[in-house]
Amino acid sequence: MTGAATERLPVAVVGAGLIGIAWAICFARAGYPVRLNDRSDEILAAAREVIAAALSDLAEFDLLAGHAPAEVLARVRPSTDLARCLDGAVHVQECAPETIPDKSALFARMGEMAGPETVLASSTSAFVPSLFTGAVRHRERCLVAHPINPPYLVPLVQLVPAPWTDPAIVARTERLMVAAGQSPIVLQRETDGFVVNRLQGALIHEALRIVDEGVADPGAIDIAIARGLGLRWAFMGPFETMELNAPAGIRDYVERYGGLYRRIIGVEHAEAMWTGRALDRVEADRMTRLDRDRIGERQRWRDRRLMDLVASLKAAEQRTRWPAA
Amino acid sequence: MTGAATERLPVAVVGAGLIGIAWAICFARAGYPVRLNDRSDEILAAAREVIAAALSDLAEFDLLAGHAPAEVLARVRPSTDLARCLDGAVHVQECAPETIPDKSALFARMGEMAGPETVLASSTSAFVPSLFTGAVRHRERCLVAHPINPPYLVPLVQLVPAPWTDPAIVARTERLMVAAGQSPIVLQRETDGFVVNRLQGALIHEALRIVDEGVADPGAIDIAIARGLGLRWAFMGPFETMELNAPAGIRDYVERYGGLYRRIIGVEHAEAMWTGRALDRVEADRMTRLDRDRIGERQRWRDRRLMDLVASLKAAEQRTRWPAA
Repeated sequence: MTGAATERLPVAVVGAGLIGIAWAICFARAGYPVRLNDRSDEILAAAREVIAAALSDLAEFDLLAGHAPAEVLARVRPSTDLARCLDGAVHVQECAPETIPDKSALFARMGEMAGPETVLASSTSAFVPSLFTGAVRHRERCLVAHPINPPYLVPLVQLVPAPWTDPAIVARTERLMVAAGQSPIVLQRETDGFVVNRLQGALIHEALRIVDEGVADPGAIDIAIARGLGLRWAFMGPFETMELNAPAGIRDYVERYGGLYRRIIGVEHAEAMWTGRALDRVEADRMTRLDRDRIGERQRWRDRRLMDLVASLKAAEQRTRWPAA
Repeated sequence: MTGAATERLPVAVVGAGLIGIAWAICFARAGYPVRLNDRSDEILAAAREVIAAALSDLAEFDLLAGHAPAEVLARVRPSTDLARCLDGAVHVQECAPETIPDKSALFARMGEMAGPETVLASSTSAFVPSLFTGAVRHRERCLVAHPINPPYLVPLVQLVPAPWTDPAIVARTERLMVAAGQSPIVLQRETDGFVVNRLQGALIHEALRIVDEGVADPGAIDIAIARGLGLRWAFMGPFETMELNAPAGIRDYVERYGGLYRRIIGVEHAEAMWTGRALDRVEADRMTRLDRDRIGERQRWRDRRLMDLVASLKAAEQRTRWPAA
């Protein structure tokens, strides 16, 4: 994480499927030497082809930080030898099949092979880390680092510690992800689906309810997001969106619209969330991020950023047509 | 809706607050003569200033369809005389205060003043149309046309008919909105919050639950959307997102991940939605939109569109900085 790209310590990516390939691109683009591991040379050769094709696309959109595709590709060293891949690695990003026996066995092996200083991170979306890292040697260096695919385009990474994960390891992984160009968030404790799939699941669930009730067809729901809510969410989260949609901030927003939302969601579930402790926390957090007297200024910023986004999306429709010509 | 901009019939916008101003910009940009109504000349003069400022910003981002701001501004005629505004208008977009007595009284008045061919549309987010249009003369021409603010940037418009709304009026309003550059969706029946606030409410509610449980802080949730889920949602809805995240489409996605989502949401609520009728409908709809054997091609299109978006957002961060210099 220090200085020039050439000084970066190696990262190991274990598993060369779609997620492993995407992580390899991500770390290599940021200057890390990447050891890419899988069980056969055929898989690794195929992975190398996919990486080369993606790097060529990324260069076209100027998303390689000025590096040539060949230069980035050369940082990725494929190998079927797991122990060699792990030797001296600062960080291991595991991308193996999503079953608990697979993950448990692999983490146990990696725990034996890797030096105690090597962080062992899993890409899993399905399992909290305590389900497969409890028996690992130096289990305090294990955690989940879950990307949204592909991480070289979508920067969010969810860091999920097990109860036994060392907070210093979480902080170190957070710094590594920032150095790799990602936007990490840290969960305070394990939860099924982490943050992203809980949010996504809630939205999809409501979308399915709307279809089931015959209120709108699925195509209308996709338009409601892609031509509506999604435009702001491309650069602003839901809490800041709320804050900027009422003159006096987020509590003002909840006072204006919370009644409607509670009615939609059903009072028995909603009442506790839309008042009291949760709202107190959100308001306190927002106050640390934006002075009350700058809400108007921030609204103007949002509107101009939205104009910029809308203009870019219009141009993108011309550049990247469907169906392809 | 025919031919050149100069042939368009007039549209009346009733109420010159933030929403009315935004609608006036929207219709005027698309070439409609706009009659903008409010109760005092002072309010209308202030509105005109806000419109002029927004048009100047829009021109800067090339979002005026090549027209000069002054040319668009000249299409907006402010007047305190409601009857004159409605006379000969093809469409009325009501943007008055959000109370049922206000809406009911205004719609009754407009029903008397406007010719029977004039569509009376409300911008309300809070009320389904049957709550305030039942006593209107020719109530079959009344409906809700709810924008996301500001509609000149966010194209989604939700059209919500009352039980007595003529389907031909809904279809005519849909065409008018398309001609005005919007992306209308039609709800099959009334529902509190329409589609957008039901989707938004479900997401915010889950975000509040995550905060309440101490899983993640509000800033982390905003990052989870703005640097994660929101990037895809800026050009693709949740159902198409699901479809492209499993090799064999949306049912395959639900078979892979539906168990996790049902576990997150709670089986008692989730089981019925994630299987059976709702999923059948979504799958049938998606099949009309994309052939099964083109999923891979569409995934590549999505990845390139995402690259384009990410590159544009990076450039936008440079162009529209915060805090402002």
